[in-house]
Amino acid sequence: MTIKVGIAGYGNLGKGAEKAVCAANDMTLTGIFTRRNPESVHPVSQVPVYSLDDAEKFKDEIDVMILCGGSATDLPEQTPALAALFNVVDSFDTHARIPEHFAAVDAAAKKAGTTAAISIGWDPGLFSLIRVLAGSILPDGETYTFWGKGVSQGHSDAVRRIEGVKDAKQYTVPSQAAMDAVRNNERPELSTRQKHTRECFVVAEEGADLERIENEIKTMPNYFDEYDTTVTFITEEEMAASHSGLPHGGFVLRSGKTGDKNHLIEFSLKLDSNPEFTASVLTAVARAVARMNKEGLTGAKTIFDIPASYLSEKSPEELRAHLL
Amino acid sequence: MTIKVGIAGYGNLGKGAEKAVCAANDMTLTGIFTRRNPESVHPVSQVPVYSLDDAEKFKDEIDVMILCGGSATDLPEQTPALAALFNVVDSFDTHARIPEHFAAVDAAAKKAGTTAAISIGWDPGLFSLIRVLAGSILPDGETYTFWGKGVSQGHSDAVRRIEGVKDAKQYTVPSQAAMDAVRNNERPELSTRQKHTRECFVVAEEGADLERIENEIKTMPNYFDEYDTTVTFITEEEMAASHSGLPHGGFVLRSGKTGDKNHLIEFSLKLDSNPEFTASVLTAVARAVARMNKEGLTGAKTIFDIPASYLSEKSPEELRAHLL
Repeated sequence: MTIKVGIAGYGNLGKGAEKAVCAANDMTLTGIFTRRNPESVHPVSQVPVYSLDDAEKFKDEIDVMILCGGSATDLPEQTPALAALFNVVDSFDTHARIPEHFAAVDAAAKKAGTTAAISIGWDPGLFSLIRVLAGSILPDGETYTFWGKGVSQGHSDAVRRIEGVKDAKQYTVPSQAAMDAVRNNERPELSTRQKHTRECFVVAEEGADLERIENEIKTMPNYFDEYDTTVTFITEEEMAASHSGLPHGGFVLRSGKTGDKNHLIEFSLKLDSNPEFTASVLTAVARAVARMNKEGLTGAKTIFDIPASYLSEKSPEELRAHLL
Repeated sequence: MTIKVGIAGYGNLGKGAEKAVCAANDMTLTGIFTRRNPESVHPVSQVPVYSLDDAEKFKDEIDVMILCGGSATDLPEQTPALAALFNVVDSFDTHARIPEHFAAVDAAAKKAGTTAAISIGWDPGLFSLIRVLAGSILPDGETYTFWGKGVSQGHSDAVRRIEGVKDAKQYTVPSQAAMDAVRNNERPELSTRQKHTRECFVVAEEGADLERIENEIKTMPNYFDEYDTTVTFITEEEMAASHSGLPHGGFVLRSGKTGDKNHLIEFSLKLDSNPEFTASVLTAVARAVARMNKEGLTGAKTIFDIPASYLSEKSPEELRAHLL
């Protein structure tokens, strides 16, 4: 069975999904759906581009829609709306609002008989899965999540909004000492400051007050004030040459005990491109969603509800024979 | 709902399962079932011990039976037989015979309306799960599994069978250079010799020919001839003091690409006690098996078929709110 896929949104994540869908042997990309003027969008794969407003016309031509909008304003609206028409998968990552997003999407999907996977990617997503697995296996234990080294787009944007800043890139960096203590089964209590540091690379406007910029960054509430932050001023050329990518990654660790025996479970990712990897997870889950819907498993799902076999192109027999 | 659990077999694995079941808030241990004389078995938890031949009498008193026998001769017989009576979980780990074991257990479980999870533990088990997840997300990539550093009981036994050997312990050690190459996204082709080395600690009988023993170990077909092996002769006291545990662990890595971007997925375990950790996985899956059976999901299952939410004591709402 070939799975017919649509992509809603064509930013970094949508471009990554296009790449991943085109690389999958069992999928075809039907089209890209955008809120922009479709004629202004030129996909690398040259698939047709349609207006998102016309999505409903493709109800019978798409098995699953991969939603590549943002969590702040796009997905809370788009996921329930599109789940009323299609099987969908999204990367909703506003942790605090997941229960309400789940409820809205579940209602729409159940009513329409569709299957909708939400909060898919690596965190939430793969990291969440490891947190649940590890916590279930080692109930007497402590789970730690570290992010980075990688680019935080939210923090980079926050720095860019400061007066006198022309461009900026912020890296979240996990503390080696904190990770060593966890790996050593010390089960440390770690403050926000002890877990991560923040590194900012800033291109300043000509004549800007660098001291003021540095101070504004380091004292910015929510974003930087609880962290040890370094600020390095660089040239535009240096920014382009050394900081143009969107690498990311991180670690989930669980240190637990059975009686007096220590056990450490560790999962980590080291990604050259955060959006391309996230899109690859969305694409594998799109396969699962299409299959689950065929089996009558409808409503909202998270990574906790999806058996691994549904993600794979391979048959259950192949998986058991070669990967078990 | 409290899950009533039975344990079949009381070796290292059964003792680990006893510990894990007693530590779970939602489980009670109904009894231990043994092929030995029940009066000769004295469980740490003081639960009743019964003859395995009497298991059928407990059909309605046990929600799930954790099978703790060996893969060579016990499980091929016990798992289908007990799946005809109970929901079961086993740790069958003879990779080459998994398809035939699955078929036998599936037939018995389907006929009886029970749920039977096979090949559960960390490899097969958690490592298999990561292999499927990682391969599904990064189809253009290569997966590597490294074991150790840890005790291989099969190899330790093989050394013990050599004439003049009083006691022996064999450690499987992953090659740092090979892992570094994988982590460096070089996607190396690795021979058996390049992936692992083997370290043997041997207590020889008095007057034994040490040179002959060392040579017999290093040239032993299947077990050692394809590896670089070191043999160290030690005293009985040293064996007891430094090599009495059963630590193990290992690594699953997938290095993959999306276009020109590299991504590395890594999962690792560092375990003080291989049987206690394996039993902890069996126990979490026992919870899943009991739940799946209540929902009518019968037949043989592997870790690929089990959604993570079924493994956790926590409700789906709690998992979404706190771990997603």
